[in-house]
Amino acid sequence: MKPIKVGLLGIGTVGAGTYNVLQRNQEDIRRRAGRGIEIAMVAARNLERARGIVGADCVVVDDPFAVVDSPDIDIVVELIGGYELPRELVLRAIANGKHVVTANKALLAQHGNEIFAAAQEKGVMVAFEAAVAGGVPIIKALREGLTANRIESVAGIINGTTNFILSEMREKGLDFATVLKQAQELGYAEADPTFDIEGVDAAHKLAIMSSIAFGIPVQFEKAHIEGISTLQAVDIRYAEQLGYRIKLLGITRRAQADGVDGIELRVHPTLIPANRLIANVEGAMNAVLVHADAVGSTLYYGKGAGSEPTASAVIADLVDVTRLATVDPYCRVPHLAFQPNEMTDVPVLPMSEIRSSYYLRVYVKDQLGVMADLTRILADAGISIDAVLQKEPGELQTRTDIIIITHQTREKFVDAAIAKIEALEAVERKVTRIRLESLS
Amino acid sequence: MKPIKVGLLGIGTVGAGTYNVLQRNQEDIRRRAGRGIEIAMVAARNLERARGIVGADCVVVDDPFAVVDSPDIDIVVELIGGYELPRELVLRAIANGKHVVTANKALLAQHGNEIFAAAQEKGVMVAFEAAVAGGVPIIKALREGLTANRIESVAGIINGTTNFILSEMREKGLDFATVLKQAQELGYAEADPTFDIEGVDAAHKLAIMSSIAFGIPVQFEKAHIEGISTLQAVDIRYAEQLGYRIKLLGITRRAQADGVDGIELRVHPTLIPANRLIANVEGAMNAVLVHADAVGSTLYYGKGAGSEPTASAVIADLVDVTRLATVDPYCRVPHLAFQPNEMTDVPVLPMSEIRSSYYLRVYVKDQLGVMADLTRILADAGISIDAVLQKEPGELQTRTDIIIITHQTREKFVDAAIAKIEALEAVERKVTRIRLESLS
Repeated sequence: MKPIKVGLLGIGTVGAGTYNVLQRNQEDIRRRAGRGIEIAMVAARNLERARGIVGADCVVVDDPFAVVDSPDIDIVVELIGGYELPRELVLRAIANGKHVVTANKALLAQHGNEIFAAAQEKGVMVAFEAAVAGGVPIIKALREGLTANRIESVAGIINGTTNFILSEMREKGLDFATVLKQAQELGYAEADPTFDIEGVDAAHKLAIMSSIAFGIPVQFEKAHIEGISTLQAVDIRYAEQLGYRIKLLGITRRAQADGVDGIELRVHPTLIPANRLIANVEGAMNAVLVHADAVGSTLYYGKGAGSEPTASAVIADLVDVTRLATVDPYCRVPHLAFQPNEMTDVPVLPMSEIRSSYYLRVYVKDQLGVMADLTRILADAGISIDAVLQKEPGELQTRTDIIIITHQTREKFVDAAIAKIEALEAVERKVTRIRLESLS
Repeated sequence: MKPIKVGLLGIGTVGAGTYNVLQRNQEDIRRRAGRGIEIAMVAARNLERARGIVGADCVVVDDPFAVVDSPDIDIVVELIGGYELPRELVLRAIANGKHVVTANKALLAQHGNEIFAAAQEKGVMVAFEAAVAGGVPIIKALREGLTANRIESVAGIINGTTNFILSEMREKGLDFATVLKQAQELGYAEADPTFDIEGVDAAHKLAIMSSIAFGIPVQFEKAHIEGISTLQAVDIRYAEQLGYRIKLLGITRRAQADGVDGIELRVHPTLIPANRLIANVEGAMNAVLVHADAVGSTLYYGKGAGSEPTASAVIADLVDVTRLATVDPYCRVPHLAFQPNEMTDVPVLPMSEIRSSYYLRVYVKDQLGVMADLTRILADAGISIDAVLQKEPGELQTRTDIIIITHQTREKFVDAAIAKIEALEAVERKVTRIRLESLS
């Protein structure tokens, strides 16, 4: 059987990794796929650089449309990044009857529904294992490994940059700005780190996982997103004293508000009990914890970024697509886990309706009755307290921190309680509020 | 499209779980598979009990051959356990052109090569996700998720009973016999626990993973197997003092002996640095750590046994088989990850040739020069020492323990050194030797 021909759009870090791994392991990959997989064409801005990576038998062009329009190409691998150009290229590749593999979570989070619908209509595959958690086969696990289950929740450390920063802040007691600078010097954070540190990248990935976990459309635009840039070292320290670690988690789960089924979809710093496996995922590593009715909790861990880890996922998709290229589309795994005519439209809940526990840090005047005021406000709001940590004020100081961990409640009740707390005479600053998940 | 018809052989714990999960989640499963999956026939020894579990539309018989011979059945699920009867049933189902799903690791470890060859010839699928690590989709990860990679090693906690016992021994400082009794009372260990505690069950699973990781035949008979029944509480304690946990690991990896490629295939208690994620897998949970050239380390964690976790894997296989039932066999994932004509025959290395680090506990007379003798013997054998822990003898005692952690070396050198140590006048008992893997 002749090799399947792949066209690469972009040959940066992941593209070069894909080319190199395919070359290095071509024999093992052919032994698995039953057919060779060959990168026959590459579109790159820098032709010189691209030619330095690929072999002489690979055509290098500067026009990506030349790849998606080439009759020689069976599968297009989109590794350009961004939104509009990749959207146009992917839709044109689909229109040309080509299968697509992409690592572009931003593209799928924004235009996934349109792209999957087009692919469905044309009968081609769009595979995207590399879009979430790099080389960890979490899309395959959710879409194929757990098909028996009603999936209840997915919670993941799905951004390596922020996890690296949080690990460093905790281990070395440093503040956010210092560690970010180090991370940038080490290449763990981009020059413009906004997408990572503000949680947008994690929310892209979460929206994709939410869709395949629950059989709903990709709804990135409805995600609640908070990053780690305002997280203070003091809260990481207090959390540790109370037995917790702080991680940037993407969380999506089935929930109810006023008796109506909904989906929570949120990215934010989260306290996790330190003895949970996922709380011990350090540095730039990723991990996704899935809770489902039959299997219980399963966890998937590995490198979430980087040239060859991401290439590993791209090539796994290439092998899958190669195997199924000629079969009836009905026999393939549906793009979003559920058959396209079987998607439902469970609404994403507003943040006020989510349920969580909370870490509250209140900076107070050290005066009689403050604790009584705080606990009364919480009790009136129906919020019960799990733990309290009151720091002695330092010598000559008249202010101190009170930390309260609440039991699970609805966010709107906490919002209301915080407003009342901030109105107290003894409270002069905003209350610090971090959500807490026991993940048991 | 009419539902696919499944016949169940055996309706014990896993069978009942499979029936119940398929019923409970039938709507979600159909939305994913694009077609209903229906258990139409069950073979059970106790007809009464079976009828209490299944609905009236499901035929219950006491002859399992009636199921594999029934023209109404598309897929046979083998959940009987054991070797000979299941072998006969599975081969007959294959001969009848039926696909097979099985959770039976013993069967596949012993007769897998024969069964997969028969399935290949007949063009049917034999799926076995449930045979390893229960509901954790590790077979899918190894076979499909990591196809880009040259897999270097697989190390797993793949027996929940032994992991539960080791966790309890460590946490409560109890000895093996006491904890085994508790585990039996709690239902975590069988009345006859031999297969679990002696490592045979883990070796069955390991032999299957080794085959799909490296593209070699299933070679259970060549596995080195040591269980935990002779493990002493004192070694768990010393290991902890040195920063390690002891786990029963199944380990398979590419290696070389005298310049020739080989495979290590071994199950034994193993020291692991306590800060590794897999060292913190406690209780009856399973975890598999895979190291591969492109993706690096990935880890898969979850419940390795039990009714619904195992059913989760059985049903995931049913969905896969349902989707691919009608496609050209060439388009399916090969049973053992590599195309059947592409398997190689890398030899399993004898234990004397494996490479590992070692924990050695030597019970010695507390006399001058013993430590010098020990270290000289190791140095002469070319074994370098990573750490030493010498316990002070208790009052009125004249014997004490010396614990030595070695750097990596070949097992045969350690065997020779241990023989010399045991010949010393100051050493009156056998040396305790436990292998150590840094898993970095």
